[in-house]
Amino acid sequence: LRQGFPEVIFGESKSVGQIERIMAALAARGNNILVTRIDEAKALAVREAFPQARHHAEARCLTLEQKPVEPRGRGTVLVVSAGTSDLPVASEALVTLRMLGNAAEHLYDVGVAGIHRLLARREALFAARVVIVVAGMEGALPSVVGGLVNCPVIAVPTSVGYGASFGGIAALLGMLNSCAAGVTVVNIDNGFGAAVAASMINRE
Amino acid sequence: LRQGFPEVIFGESKSVGQIERIMAALAARGNNILVTRIDEAKALAVREAFPQARHHAEARCLTLEQKPVEPRGRGTVLVVSAGTSDLPVASEALVTLRMLGNAAEHLYDVGVAGIHRLLARREALFAARVVIVVAGMEGALPSVVGGLVNCPVIAVPTSVGYGASFGGIAALLGMLNSCAAGVTVVNIDNGFGAAVAASMINRE
Amino acid sequence: LRQGFPEVIFGESKSVGQIERIMAALAARGNNILVTRIDEAKALAVREAFPQARHHAEARCLTLEQKPVEPRGRGTVLVVSAGTSDLPVASEALVTLRMLGNAAEHLYDVGVAGIHRLLARREALFAARVVIVVAGMEGALPSVVGGLVNCPVIAVPTSVGYGASFGGIAALLGMLNSCAAGVTVVNIDNGFGAAVAASMINRE
Amino acid sequence: LRQGFPEVIFGESKSVGQIERIMAALAARGNNILVTRIDEAKALAVREAFPQARHHAEARCLTLEQKPVEPRGRGTVLVVSAGTSDLPVASEALVTLRMLGNAAEHLYDVGVAGIHRLLARREALFAARVVIVVAGMEGALPSVVGGLVNCPVIAVPTSVGYGASFGGIAALLGMLNSCAAGVTVVNIDNGFGAAVAASMINRE
Amino acid sequence: LRQGFPEVIFGESKSVGQIERIMAALAARGNNILVTRIDEAKALAVREAFPQARHHAEARCLTLEQKPVEPRGRGTVLVVSAGTSDLPVASEALVTLRMLGNAAEHLYDVGVAGIHRLLARREALFAARVVIVVAGMEGALPSVVGGLVNCPVIAVPTSVGYGASFGGIAALLGMLNSCAAGVTVVNIDNGFGAAVAASMINRE
Amino acid sequence: LRQGFPEVIFGESKSVGQIERIMAALAARGNNILVTRIDEAKALAVREAFPQARHHAEARCLTLEQKPVEPRGRGTVLVVSAGTSDLPVASEALVTLRMLGNAAEHLYDVGVAGIHRLLARREALFAARVVIVVAGMEGALPSVVGGLVNCPVIAVPTSVGYGASFGGIAALLGMLNSCAAGVTVVNIDNGFGAAVAASMINRE
Amino acid sequence: LRQGFPEVIFGESKSVGQIERIMAALAARGNNILVTRIDEAKALAVREAFPQARHHAEARCLTLEQKPVEPRGRGTVLVVSAGTSDLPVASEALVTLRMLGNAAEHLYDVGVAGIHRLLARREALFAARVVIVVAGMEGALPSVVGGLVNCPVIAVPTSVGYGASFGGIAALLGMLNSCAAGVTVVNIDNGFGAAVAASMINRE
Amino acid sequence: LRQGFPEVIFGESKSVGQIERIMAALAARGNNILVTRIDEAKALAVREAFPQARHHAEARCLTLEQKPVEPRGRGTVLVVSAGTSDLPVASEALVTLRMLGNAAEHLYDVGVAGIHRLLARREALFAARVVIVVAGMEGALPSVVGGLVNCPVIAVPTSVGYGASFGGIAALLGMLNSCAAGVTVVNIDNGFGAAVAASMINRE
Ligand SMILES: Nc1ncnc2c1ncn2[C@@H]1O[C@H](COP(=O)(O)O)[C@@H](O)[C@H]1O
Ligand SMILES: Nc1ncnc2c1ncn2[C@@H]1O[C@H](COP(=O)(O)O)[C@@H](O)[C@H]1O
Ligand SMILES: Nc1ncnc2c1ncn2[C@@H]1O[C@H](COP(=O)(O)O)[C@@H](O)[C@H]1O
Ligand SMILES: Nc1ncnc2c1ncn2[C@@H]1O[C@H](COP(=O)(O)O)[C@@H](O)[C@H]1O
Ligand SMILES: [Mg+2]
Ligand SMILES: [Mg+2]
Ligand SMILES: [Mg+2]
Ligand SMILES: [Mg+2]
Ligand SMILES: [Mg+2]
Ligand SMILES: [Mg+2]
Ligand SMILES: [Mg+2]
Ligand SMILES: [Mg+2]
Repeated sequence: LRQGFPEVIFGESKSVGQIERIMAALAARGNNILVTRIDEAKALAVREAFPQARHHAEARCLTLEQKPVEPRGRGTVLVVSAGTSDLPVASEALVTLRMLGNAAEHLYDVGVAGIHRLLARREALFAARVVIVVAGMEGALPSVVGGLVNCPVIAVPTSVGYGASFGGIAALLGMLNSCAAGVTVVNIDNGFGAAVAASMINRE
Repeated sequence: LRQGFPEVIFGESKSVGQIERIMAALAARGNNILVTRIDEAKALAVREAFPQARHHAEARCLTLEQKPVEPRGRGTVLVVSAGTSDLPVASEALVTLRMLGNAAEHLYDVGVAGIHRLLARREALFAARVVIVVAGMEGALPSVVGGLVNCPVIAVPTSVGYGASFGGIAALLGMLNSCAAGVTVVNIDNGFGAAVAASMINRE
Repeated sequence: LRQGFPEVIFGESKSVGQIERIMAALAARGNNILVTRIDEAKALAVREAFPQARHHAEARCLTLEQKPVEPRGRGTVLVVSAGTSDLPVASEALVTLRMLGNAAEHLYDVGVAGIHRLLARREALFAARVVIVVAGMEGALPSVVGGLVNCPVIAVPTSVGYGASFGGIAALLGMLNSCAAGVTVVNIDNGFGAAVAASMINRE
Repeated sequence: LRQGFPEVIFGESKSVGQIERIMAALAARGNNILVTRIDEAKALAVREAFPQARHHAEARCLTLEQKPVEPRGRGTVLVVSAGTSDLPVASEALVTLRMLGNAAEHLYDVGVAGIHRLLARREALFAARVVIVVAGMEGALPSVVGGLVNCPVIAVPTSVGYGASFGGIAALLGMLNSCAAGVTVVNIDNGFGAAVAASMINRE
Repeated sequence: LRQGFPEVIFGESKSVGQIERIMAALAARGNNILVTRIDEAKALAVREAFPQARHHAEARCLTLEQKPVEPRGRGTVLVVSAGTSDLPVASEALVTLRMLGNAAEHLYDVGVAGIHRLLARREALFAARVVIVVAGMEGALPSVVGGLVNCPVIAVPTSVGYGASFGGIAALLGMLNSCAAGVTVVNIDNGFGAAVAASMINRE
Repeated sequence: LRQGFPEVIFGESKSVGQIERIMAALAARGNNILVTRIDEAKALAVREAFPQARHHAEARCLTLEQKPVEPRGRGTVLVVSAGTSDLPVASEALVTLRMLGNAAEHLYDVGVAGIHRLLARREALFAARVVIVVAGMEGALPSVVGGLVNCPVIAVPTSVGYGASFGGIAALLGMLNSCAAGVTVVNIDNGFGAAVAASMINRE
Repeated sequence: LRQGFPEVIFGESKSVGQIERIMAALAARGNNILVTRIDEAKALAVREAFPQARHHAEARCLTLEQKPVEPRGRGTVLVVSAGTSDLPVASEALVTLRMLGNAAEHLYDVGVAGIHRLLARREALFAARVVIVVAGMEGALPSVVGGLVNCPVIAVPTSVGYGASFGGIAALLGMLNSCAAGVTVVNIDNGFGAAVAASMINRE
Repeated sequence: LRQGFPEVIFGESKSVGQIERIMAALAARGNNILVTRIDEAKALAVREAFPQARHHAEARCLTLEQKPVEPRGRGTVLVVSAGTSDLPVASEALVTLRMLGNAAEHLYDVGVAGIHRLLARREALFAARVVIVVAGMEGALPSVVGGLVNCPVIAVPTSVGYGASFGGIAALLGMLNSCAAGVTVVNIDNGFGAAVAASMINRE
């Protein structure tokens, strides 16, 4: 990320040793650091070397703030999610958004099968500059949200579900076929990527 | 259909001659007849032999009523559809429902991206004994409807759309993964099958 | 489930602690509770906090009846299953049906390759108001059953099989293409969803 | 086919000229000839050059018998099919079987949704040395037949259907997952291949 | 589009008569109108009723400007495309962008296999507020562009190609897996949708 | 298997206790028993209760012969396999064939990329009444074998391979498209099913 | 093609007018020109403007040689194909190879089900510097050829076949899983691409 | 590998005992040996029996050089890779290339989203006789490299990624659709196969 963003480390296929070595090198330059896709065990191990790092367990992220994050967005980025199983992806988006200097808020437990809970939160929706919608199963939430708001909507399919959800394919296809204009889509479970795109949109 | 229903002919792969021969045999027994999946040209040709038959152009059906259809349902079956391209499938369901003796109504142009048009028709939804929801694209409408009503919802995916709609697969998967309880699904574009199932549910 | 149903908790991605917290809150309101997709270990742990809860091991369910389940269906819901590997899904449907107040019965070990065992049970089939058919492999049973009965048939594909069964896709596709009228389909392994839909159909 | 079989020409991607040239060469050697996958127009054109050839319109085949077909099977090969749309594939199998010297019979209109029509023909089933089952849609018929007979069953999926039949994939998967022992499968619409295999099985 | 945008008609499955009726109704209200997915023949027919409408042949669009389009974006939206077969989709995006009040430019013939042609146009890339990248085949262009720019990139896969391009699936998957941050994706061939999203991002 | 075959138990999803109970019941009737898909640990446990049972480790089978297997085939069934990873499936076929009373032989290590090793064994091929060909990867072996022999060939795709072998789909598709006449196919890894079909073909 | 190759025009989605304009521009520079994927009608039309161009009907190519093609390969490139339906793709490869200065030969009608015809041509195989193998259906030919030769083999799957050939997917997967070392694969029907790669390999 | 290459053992599905037995037999003949797909634990165990064998941990290979590898290529084979997760596959290619007598070099960390790092290494690219490009995710790197160089490019998709990368399918499809001429493709993660093909190309 050559854009004044913090340095980002994709933790998934890296060992504790590899993560620590990369963090040490980046930290030496004074940068803020975001590690994504790091599981509980690895995060605890890394924190022994970097006790000042913060572990965001639900988001599976680790952050190291060596200098205050500079606020830089024009408005608020709202993350909307439905079921509890979508929370890790929504949290990854939220942690990323904040590390990138955005004001970010979370509207959760607002699935399409209970449309009134969503409509009751209309104000939050209308106040956003960008909305990230995280949803698994049938992936219908971005269409409903996109029909309500006038701002860009970034849809994140999640791998939540079973049977014919096919690890997120059902949600992904639903989102790509959204009949609401202004909806764009990122890869399954890619809360990080949605947050980076939202952050670029939100930039002044 | 061994259930006192009218005789049904699946017109798709049959020639005008074949359809006429089968109709003649069934008509001789005094039955009502429903021909589905019959295109404009074939329907016009068949009507020359059976001038009393009625052509339902949008539904691609032909009906021959030799005796009045006996009303037999306990309540109303409501067919809900979104875009104009879903109308043929919704119409096939409606024609079938009526030939099977059901009171049937149609709520159309109520897609998920304009949720208020749907909510404005709440009464119609609450009054139904069964709801058939016909939708293409992301197939999200059954989830929203299923969240509003307490009666059974039969979802019919349509082959409407382009690109990643894959001829109705996106809608089909969305509906199979519906997070609303009480939703069951039939084959892509199968308005006829949904109507038969709804009719069995609606029977006294 | 806003329909006077018991409260339902989807146990799959929840920890013992989460399940206990939700159960405590719901129990305080006096409701009956159904937990689905809860494995042996979790069920035993939760029962330490709720000793009066009943564990349905094969169905992977836990039920808490604080007040007697009120009978509310018009007839019997029959669950039909083929191989022994389909039993967990059939059991999930049965437990759900009974918690929702239905008279429910089970016809098992009646696969399509031994058609006479099924035909020998004709009476049970004809007596049902709704039939739920649970089958893996080629998913052919709903077609045979649907051809025999006049009532609605809800087909549940299971993930049983290997190779080209593709985790239930073969059975799912078979059921969606059923040539028997009146068959609708739910997601792979979704015994719960089939039971809720059957219960709505069965309601007086 | 190096097995004393007649010469076979796959007509699909060949022009009338190409077919005539190949037929002339083979006919000169005194062989019997079978042309498969030849459409009406091509067949009529080829018959102008070979008036003694016979056109099997439904089977889309052309046969030229220059010498009597020698009977060579041990028993009867029975071709079983369900809907009218499966007839072309069943006919291709029948024409091929007879050109290969087999006694072949046809049992049709016996789908799984009307199991009694099939059971009423039990004798024909039990009398066969090999059964070829041709079916589209859910492809369930081979399982039922395989459960009734003790002889080998060759299943031919057809591309009949719409929506989630996916041009025969649903039927193909159903047949590969058949729970009846002794069922083997050939390619979608491959009535010819099934007949050749059946003929080898039937050989004395 | 409830956002002060012109009225949009999706022309694909509509007859000339239907399009004219909708246009007449919208035109009566004084709105600007954009018809997408309208083929040559239909466009010429509609222009007889609306001679002041403009036909954008390559974009398969028809526009009717009854009042000047009000400029409303903060910067330029750049549409980047590779091969000549991607031009219709790129043009649909450009026509839509301009009807929505954006300054829009086009950079074409800059595929990934000739990276220097793209690098030679660096300035145009750096000057954009949003970039729409239209590409078929392997869909690699958004990754390269996304690596060069700091602004949001919207990727549009096209159905261009043959064999294993599977009607745009290869390009779609490539774009969803883009290793460049800030890339979001729309449906195959959906130049219109990309333009609406870009327009929302570009809004002041 | 209602055909005078031994009793067969599909061991995969059954516990040691379940297998023992079924075996005890069947053994009491004096039958021979074949258990397929039973792993090492389960087989050892079951053998404690049935010490006279024989464990075929590579085939993952257990057999109990209470009376001598009666020979009943007309000729030899030849099992042909390529790589060492195909051996378990080939062995399952061999154990099954012998329990069903067939003379069975094994030709192994004869892949298509070393065609001379196969040709060197021509005699064994020509001597067979039925050939079962077991192969993973590209699944090409049945085509080559089918081109050499005049008897029926049953192809068994295996889940051997990685990447684009997709758990046996590549081999399965290759076999379904075999250009050699007389080849039929069973499910991926289904050595048992191939053996049952071969046994029915081989019957006198 | 920045490699001293002739100029290449992909004719598929281009009009006669577009092809003529591009040809005129390239011809003015004195280059040799190869047009691929040009159908009969277009080719005839273009030849009116460029009477000296040569039409390769089976290969669907048009070539314009303004200067003699300079021979530049180290050895012979052998194109091997099986069925007659593979000939267009094989021919496209041959025309391309010759325009690129290679000595190219064609070995045809040598499918895997008749292995002896292939083995009879061993010499031609052993003499080649590169072999291009063109095959549809099960795509097994490259494995057999690759097992015989020591030089690089480029496999071209063709869209020939029906049913489970899925427009060339079966052949493509077979080739990607080839158990013969030294086999690489290009896109379905891409005879042109195979020839370019072979030409680069063959370069001195 | 009948080509004077070292003996190669595919370690994946073999036990330590099996590998040792095969190695002992081959070593007795004086050959060099390459074991691929051997995990850490197995490699350590095998090295106890063959202490002179060398373990290449990242490449998951074991090599035994009993005689010096004879250099035999005409030029250098360059292996290019993008992310760190692609390193095991790149390393497998490198180890194989060297065992086959090629001069081989590695250019890594040069993904398409940072095109300048790749362009900075232009010389290395231009100096190669063959380039192997290893990439996961969107698989775009071979197109960019193929556009820069004139020599053959062998693309190796890797199973790196998540969600819609589908275990390497996205990268595989991208590479098969590469718009750069001269690119051929091997199976997902098949670094070994790419190296064998490159070695054959590089041979004098
Ligand atoms: N549109 C339809 N979709 C699916 N099945 C249908 C349709 N129309 C009729 N059928 C079924 O097809 C049967 C008649 O098929 P056939 O004998 O081929 O005319 C009827 O009994 C119905 O069950
Ligand atoms: N090319 C297009 N692709 C996808 N959606 C479109 C396209 N053109 C128009 N639309 C949408 O279709 C709606 C109009 O649909 P309709 O009422 O059927 O004409 C518009 O509001 C747009 O959101
Ligand atoms: N390996 C196998 N693959 C497929 N089917 C099998 C296999 N082994 C046994 N079967 C079938 O499974 C039936 C027994 O199933 P079960 O009653 O569940 O033990 C037998 O009659 C066989 O038809
Ligand atoms: N049959 C073909 N298949 C794939 N690519 C081709 C084919 N013919 C030409 N090409 C490529 O298409 C490029 C020309 O494309 P275009 O500028 O659209 O005519 C050439 O440089 C070739 O690399
Ligand atoms: Mg909106
Ligand atoms: Mg509801
Ligand atoms: Mg019925
Ligand atoms: Mg049987
Ligand atoms: Mg960027
Ligand atoms: Mg043969
Ligand atoms: Mg070789
Ligand atoms: Mg190049």
